[in-house]
Amino acid sequence: MTLGFALLGADAGARRGRLTTAHGTVETPTFMAVGTAATVKGLTPAMVASTGTGIVLGNTYHLMLRPGAERIAKLGGLHQFMQWPGPILTDSGGYQVMSLAGLRTLSEQGVEFRSHHDGSKHMLSPERSTEIQHLLDATITMAFDECTPFPATEDVAAQSMALSMRWAKRSRDAFVARDGYGQFGIVQGSVYPDLRQQSVDALLQIGFEGYAVGGLAVGEPQAEMFRVLEHTTPALPADRPRYLMGVGKPGDLVGAVARGIDMFDCVIPTRSGRTGQAFTRAGPLNIRNARYADDPRPLDPECACPVCAGGFSRAYLHHLVRSEEMLGPMLLTWHNLSYYQDLMAMMRQAIEAGTFAQFQTQFTADQARGIAP
Amino acid sequence: MTLGFALLGADAGARRGRLTTAHGTVETPTFMAVGTAATVKGLTPAMVASTGTGIVLGNTYHLMLRPGAERIAKLGGLHQFMQWPGPILTDSGGYQVMSLAGLRTLSEQGVEFRSHHDGSKHMLSPERSTEIQHLLDATITMAFDECTPFPATEDVAAQSMALSMRWAKRSRDAFVARDGYGQFGIVQGSVYPDLRQQSVDALLQIGFEGYAVGGLAVGEPQAEMFRVLEHTTPALPADRPRYLMGVGKPGDLVGAVARGIDMFDCVIPTRSGRTGQAFTRAGPLNIRNARYADDPRPLDPECACPVCAGGFSRAYLHHLVRSEEMLGPMLLTWHNLSYYQDLMAMMRQAIEAGTFAQFQTQFTADQARGIAP
Repeated sequence: MTLGFALLGADAGARRGRLTTAHGTVETPTFMAVGTAATVKGLTPAMVASTGTGIVLGNTYHLMLRPGAERIAKLGGLHQFMQWPGPILTDSGGYQVMSLAGLRTLSEQGVEFRSHHDGSKHMLSPERSTEIQHLLDATITMAFDECTPFPATEDVAAQSMALSMRWAKRSRDAFVARDGYGQFGIVQGSVYPDLRQQSVDALLQIGFEGYAVGGLAVGEPQAEMFRVLEHTTPALPADRPRYLMGVGKPGDLVGAVARGIDMFDCVIPTRSGRTGQAFTRAGPLNIRNARYADDPRPLDPECACPVCAGGFSRAYLHHLVRSEEMLGPMLLTWHNLSYYQDLMAMMRQAIEAGTFAQFQTQFTADQARGIAP
Repeated sequence: MTLGFALLGADAGARRGRLTTAHGTVETPTFMAVGTAATVKGLTPAMVASTGTGIVLGNTYHLMLRPGAERIAKLGGLHQFMQWPGPILTDSGGYQVMSLAGLRTLSEQGVEFRSHHDGSKHMLSPERSTEIQHLLDATITMAFDECTPFPATEDVAAQSMALSMRWAKRSRDAFVARDGYGQFGIVQGSVYPDLRQQSVDALLQIGFEGYAVGGLAVGEPQAEMFRVLEHTTPALPADRPRYLMGVGKPGDLVGAVARGIDMFDCVIPTRSGRTGQAFTRAGPLNIRNARYADDPRPLDPECACPVCAGGFSRAYLHHLVRSEEMLGPMLLTWHNLSYYQDLMAMMRQAIEAGTFAQFQTQFTADQARGIAP
């Protein structure tokens, strides 16, 4: 029995589902916390779990270089290594190695690159990426692909997509199927509907346990991203999970769920926590701002997370961040990830209740309220 | 009713006691976690509490400059600000301002200094230090003193001690007594027995709720520190708590408890956690060492702390620290503080059982074992 996905309901374009995996069950729509180097930065696994996070993402590129995939395998796999017993999705490393401008060479075979740590030479190919993800014991393995740059001409996008589809086939051939594990193919094709459709067709021909929409969240406007989703998600099979890679801001998540997406990952909640930005039901705030130095209120008075309910004031968080105390990023990250998971939970609830459209309207109005002092 | 202290027992020079305060009870001997800038670096208050820490130390110098004592008072005091409901001891700021070589001027009145943040001018005197600690709502306030440099000639040490005793009187006069709160005087006199005795006499003349031994942990050999304790603690009243400031390494704590000390504070467990050093029952180890890259064992196989019992391997901690991931210092600090509190608990238990001498012998042998791979 491979990775399971049950579609429990749908409302106003949004889907309510459940992933069943070798490492437990995940309610969708879900937001995956980014745990690049085998840690969600600034949080213990227990803190991550307390936010409602059901699945964590690991980065093949970072982990293959340090501490090394073979080492993690010998130590019992990534779940054991980072003490996250729940599901883990790993990316293929493709996105990161493509970003190594000047340090990598792309060929049909794969990508040769130099480590950003020590300049040492490495190779990532569909086969090696898939093997690394197997060594890591990833619950969900991603196909190795080329993330098409944005903007790209239709010709460039077509060639890039075609390469990704050949690599998708090789990734699938290299994948070792196991009970409760799965592999996702990645739809490319930039902003061109025909290319996206061709990419979907090619992936369906191969057959995966889930499908990701790639090549977005690379600088295009939100409207463009939504337009691509509108002509991509309807082409994907309803009985398989859909993952929008690298997205996004709260408004992006709500809009993408409305367009049939089930899974997300993004560094925004965690990275923002390290730069003093907090997400709240009344929009974002930057805790470094002097206006918060004497503010006794929690970050978000409507939030029940361990930071907001725990009595930590904006004044205290302002002090911690200004003083460059580790506890500042820790608490802000904890809150932000909780905020993201609360948002996902509210969306799941709204879909179940058949009130997703109202939820979306209310969410947009709340975000426009601003943080009145 | 002022700060309470009950001497519950004694064994082989060591004392077993209990502090009762407005913010709860503390079993002694106790180790106070250092929370300089209103946070024990890298730990949430719940993590601090989970280590068995009963009382936290805050630094007047740091807090008066940022975020400011009046601001903390307006926000409900330091307990509320940092969400540590238990007892807090604050130092007087004396030690820090004395260290500001070239940035401070000492007079009978007090110390004028410039902030290390922005160069702004400030004054600390016995009166102002005591007032700041009151604004912070410190459970235990320390008298403002001059920490005599080491080494010092007997003349220099005598003059410095005499100044500290005049300041102790002014600190006491400025102290506002409240139920369950107290103020400690600080014994000075460097390594000179006569001066230490004169200092004790002067402090007893004034009368405090507890007595600290100051001017140690400033670079003198351990044997010298123990020698000073041997002719200082017998002169202190048995029914009042004794606090050895800024000490120390595990072996220092055991030796000082054997010489009648009840309270300690030190940055070692927390600071070491940020530099990759871990304390274990078989001595310290540096987790950055390459020998730990593949080591699946916990930091200390005999430790039941959330890190060692939580399945985090040396290999994982090595990876986190090498990768400069925040979680590395977080977990190492958590373990180290747990180790310190376990050590205090073992000492309290040994005193109760009348086996402190055996404990001390065994401890020394264990530390000599080293970390066999």
